[in-house]
Amino acid sequence: MPDETTAPDATDEYPFVTEVPTRWHDNDQYGHVNNAVHYQVMDTVINAWLMAHGFDPSGDVVDLVPETGCRYLAEISYPAPFVVGLRVARLGRTSVTWEVELRRGSDREVVALGRFAHVFVDRESRRPVPVPEHLREAMEGLAKDHG
Amino acid sequence: MPDETTAPDATDEYPFVTEVPTRWHDNDQYGHVNNAVHYQVMDTVINAWLMAHGFDPSGDVVDLVPETGCRYLAEISYPAPFVVGLRVARLGRTSVTWEVELRRGSDREVVALGRFAHVFVDRESRRPVPVPEHLREAMEGLAKDHG
Amino acid sequence: MPDETTAPDATDEYPFVTEVPTRWHDNDQYGHVNNAVHYQVMDTVINAWLMAHGFDPSGDVVDLVPETGCRYLAEISYPAPFVVGLRVARLGRTSVTWEVELRRGSDREVVALGRFAHVFVDRESRRPVPVPEHLREAMEGLAKDHG
Amino acid sequence: MPDETTAPDATDEYPFVTEVPTRWHDNDQYGHVNNAVHYQVMDTVINAWLMAHGFDPSGDVVDLVPETGCRYLAEISYPAPFVVGLRVARLGRTSVTWEVELRRGSDREVVALGRFAHVFVDRESRRPVPVPEHLREAMEGLAKDHG
Repeated sequence: MPDETTAPDATDEYPFVTEVPTRWHDNDQYGHVNNAVHYQVMDTVINAWLMAHGFDPSGDVVDLVPETGCRYLAEISYPAPFVVGLRVARLGRTSVTWEVELRRGSDREVVALGRFAHVFVDRESRRPVPVPEHLREAMEGLAKDHG
Repeated sequence: MPDETTAPDATDEYPFVTEVPTRWHDNDQYGHVNNAVHYQVMDTVINAWLMAHGFDPSGDVVDLVPETGCRYLAEISYPAPFVVGLRVARLGRTSVTWEVELRRGSDREVVALGRFAHVFVDRESRRPVPVPEHLREAMEGLAKDHG
Repeated sequence: MPDETTAPDATDEYPFVTEVPTRWHDNDQYGHVNNAVHYQVMDTVINAWLMAHGFDPSGDVVDLVPETGCRYLAEISYPAPFVVGLRVARLGRTSVTWEVELRRGSDREVVALGRFAHVFVDRESRRPVPVPEHLREAMEGLAKDHG
Repeated sequence: MPDETTAPDATDEYPFVTEVPTRWHDNDQYGHVNNAVHYQVMDTVINAWLMAHGFDPSGDVVDLVPETGCRYLAEISYPAPFVVGLRVARLGRTSVTWEVELRRGSDREVVALGRFAHVFVDRESRRPVPVPEHLREAMEGLAKDHG
């Protein structure tokens, strides 16, 4: 995953875009990627972006998930990859809400739109802590009304 | 999974209740069940209930998922099982929206509240079809305002 | 999972037997449980047995996996549960090799035979350490030539 | 995934080499990729190779898995990708045995060596059928004693 927010496919709508291949067992018995896989993909892209911007999931601050949601607009099947666009919809003091667009790599059709919230907490106490400053700055660059 | 809607744990709020054990690899590197697993659990409980009421996922009508969502209220970790309550929030002509309560089996704390929609479609054309009649009747018994 | 080695289904061959339900998405696009799921099931049963006998995966000693293998004899599909038999094939100073029998819950046909090795290591150094004494004693009760 | 057997990383030992990224939830609570994930990766690479060479998993002939095995030599953690080498160890009349080398993408250390068998069967009868001729020819190019 490139650690910059201007991949070739980046758009005004989604400043960061990356590709996530599918796996044989992402397909369920209907022959398409199972609905829970989309959340694995969002989680993967968001945490990779955070780690590329200095987040360490073994550190004192961890990112817990208070809420997720997804609308499925079309089917996608292995071996087509996902093309995933990421932006920040809301940036709070201790939390962030991401919006994620999932396209089918073969023809760029939008297959799903997801929302994924993170709250940053102290690893031990599980109490919310402010979004680390270096992450906040990077997140501002992903805001949908940015620029 | 019992094929009746009055398991010992059934409540007024959730007429069908069943248990789903967790697995070693449900826990992610934070040592708790990963957020995507909750959707696998909802999918499992709903489809098992449908199959117990005569739904055949190899038949001419299949159930696709247009939308899902989940609020996470507390953490749960393997080996604690989920205790899952199920009800029907909205029953349309071709679709149904389920509400799912996930409790931690060890102490019955509510760990998550989920929403899961199904639309019934023709296997080949993928066009919506009416909810099969025998399922509709059973679903009415799971409606939250039932009785 | 019961924390005793004499579940109703225990046999001379497999002193510990337990049930593991399948999930909707265990089935892959061939409509049967995917081959990788069998390893998740083995891992789940073995670690639950270890934890029921005092193993703490957050402690100073962790169990790493140097080798696994499985022969698949028949198909199994959700919603049929697995019935899983467990025994110890070889107990070394720092390691243990488990043998696992997976049956289809609906008709008790053997669907797979697995081998799963664990080496106990120090969490930090990742160097092998002796099998903890309380676990060793319990493991001896699961040895296939036991009694 | 490139549909040729001469990716830049191809070696004499493994004629086909490709990359498979890891996902957030591949890591289990020990913070490393769980042992069952390696089988998902093998399955993904082998089926993608087969499909790139004309195999259609919705067709009359499907590939079932009679046996798998893996030795784990080192740990790998998300977000490091797998670099996967593939070769054919044994090509029978109705079956094929693959050997798979999994390296850590960040430093190319070998983390696991896997074996994965496929038997080709009729979709309906589940009886073995000869390896389809166009696949057999391609497989011969992946044989470890090839050339």
